Amino acid sequence: MIDCGEGTQIRLRQQRVTPARIHHIFISHLHGDHVFGLYGLLSSMGMMGRQVPVNLYGPGRLRELMEQYLKYFGPLPYEIRCHAPGKGDGSLIYEDEKITVEPIPLKHRTRTYGYLFREKEKPLNLRKEMVEEFQPGIAEMVRIKRGEDFITNDGRVIPNREMVHPPYRRRSYAYLSDTRFEPGLAERVAGVDLLFHEATFAGNDEKLAGETLHSTSRQAAELARLAGVGRLLIGHFSTRYKDPFRLVEEAREIFPRTDGVMDGDRYSVPLERVAPE
Amino acid sequence: MIDCGEGTQIRLRQQRVTPARIHHIFISHLHGDHVFGLYGLLSSMGMMGRQVPVNLYGPGRLRELMEQYLKYFGPLPYEIRCHAPGKGDGSLIYEDEKITVEPIPLKHRTRTYGYLFREKEKPLNLRKEMVEEFQPGIAEMVRIKRGEDFITNDGRVIPNREMVHPPYRRRSYAYLSDTRFEPGLAERVAGVDLLFHEATFAGNDEKLAGETLHSTSRQAAELARLAGVGRLLIGHFSTRYKDPFRLVEEAREIFPRTDGVMDGDRYSVPLERVAPE
Repeated sequence: MIDCGEGTQIRLRQQRVTPARIHHIFISHLHGDHVFGLYGLLSSMGMMGRQVPVNLYGPGRLRELMEQYLKYFGPLPYEIRCHAPGKGDGSLIYEDEKITVEPIPLKHRTRTYGYLFREKEKPLNLRKEMVEEFQPGIAEMVRIKRGEDFITNDGRVIPNREMVHPPYRRRSYAYLSDTRFEPGLAERVAGVDLLFHEATFAGNDEKLAGETLHSTSRQAAELARLAGVGRLLIGHFSTRYKDPFRLVEEAREIFPRTDGVMDGDRYSVPLERVAPE
Repeated sequence: MIDCGEGTQIRLRQQRVTPARIHHIFISHLHGDHVFGLYGLLSSMGMMGRQVPVNLYGPGRLRELMEQYLKYFGPLPYEIRCHAPGKGDGSLIYEDEKITVEPIPLKHRTRTYGYLFREKEKPLNLRKEMVEEFQPGIAEMVRIKRGEDFITNDGRVIPNREMVHPPYRRRSYAYLSDTRFEPGLAERVAGVDLLFHEATFAGNDEKLAGETLHSTSRQAAELARLAGVGRLLIGHFSTRYKDPFRLVEEAREIFPRTDGVMDGDRYSVPLERVAPE
C-alpha cells in the first residue's frame, strides 16, 4: 500500500481487499491526508488478531509517530517495523524475489519520498517443443532459463533465444506525491509503465503551486513527457476545482496518455513479452 | 459533537454539517473508534482557515494526545482548548445560557465518561391577551417571565400561571458509551428524554461483554427501564453480528421504546410545554 489517508480501511472494505494481505505500507510524508488512516487500519489489524509484522517505509519521523500511536492506542498483537530511506540515490528501501522499491526524494514542505516499484527479471520460459526435441536434463534447463545456450550431445550449439520464449518486460510504477515540479525527476522515472504524479492545481494557479510546493496538472504532464512514461495518472486535486476533469484536459494537451484518478479506480500493467513470437 | 471516529468529517459532509459550526467536542475515551477522526477534522478546520477555538472535553490524557498531534501536524490557525472533568459527581464540564453538560464516569477498560446534556429552564412566555388586558411595564414583564405573580394597579393579584403559557419542559440527552452494565448509572440519567447506551453484544454473549467491559443490548434496555427514560437508542454493535436488528429486538423485550441507530440517523426531542393549554 502507498500512503494511507483517513478512511483507507473503509475503501479497502469497499474494494474487498482484506487488511491481512497488506504487509508493506509506503508512506510518502507525514501530512494528514497521507497518514491519518494509518491509526485506524493498524488498530483494526490488531482487532482482527493479526500476528505477522507490518512494515512501514517512510521519513524517519514515522518511527516516532508510531511510538506515540502505540503509547496511546497500543499494544498490538503484532509488530510494526519502521524503515527509513538510506543515504544516496538509487539505494533500495525494499527488495524481495519479485520486485525492488526505490525511494525518490521529492521537494515538498516536509521530508517527502516518492517510490519506484520495479519488477525483477523473471526466469525465461522454455519452449515446450524444444524441450521435447532435445530433452535437456534438469541442470541444463536451469541454465537455459538463466539465458545460456544449449549444447546438444553431438556438440551442436542451439542459441538460447531459440530454446525459450522472449522474456517478459519488467513492469514498473512510480508514485510521486506531494512535490513541486522537478524536471530532474524525469531521469529517475524514465520509461516507467505507469507514473502517478500529483496535480494539485490547474495551470493558471501555477504561482500557488510554486508557493505551496505542489504541481499543476500541466507540470505533471511535462514530467511524464520528459520521462517518456507509458501512462500518466494524476490526482490529489485541490477541492477548489469543482470539475477536476479540466485539469486532466490541460495535462492531455501536453501528454495525451493521461488519466485523472478517483477513489476506487484500478489500473493494471499487462505482463507482456519484449518481442512478439 | 460527541466522539469522533475515523471518517467523521466525511459523515459531516454527507449530513451537510459544516465543521465551522462545531465549537465543542466531547470525547468519551481514548480508544481509536472514538477519536481517530479527530486529527482529520481538526486539520481540515485549519485548512478552511478557522480562527475561533475548538473546545475538547474528555479524559486528561486527551490534552497530551493533542500536544502530540500538534507536534507532528501543527501548527493550526486556531486554538485547541482541552477540558478534563473535575472531581466529584454532578460537577459540570460545560455550561452556557442554554444548556449544561455533566460528565458521568463509566466503567470501561480505560478512563471513560458519558455525558448528560440538559437544557436550562427557558424564560416563561407571556400570554398575549393578558398583556393586552393589564398592560404591564417592562420591569413587571421581566418579573412575570421569572415566575412572579402580577399585581394590578388596584391591588388585585393575578397568579403567574394565568399570565404566562405553561413552561417548556427541559429536554435532556445522555450518552453512555463505552461501559459495562452499571445499574447505578440509572440514577444519574433518571428520566432523560433520550438515552444512548452502547450495546456491543447480544444477550447470549453477556460473558464476553463482562470480560471486555461492554454491555449487551438487554443490559442497555434494563438500564433504560431502571432510569425511566423517554426513549433508548442503542448502537456500537460488534461486527460479529451480521444482523444487529436481533440486538434491538432483544432490547425491546425489556424496554419497548428502543431503536437501533446507524450512521446518519437523526432523532429530535420536540420542545413541549409541561401542561396542555
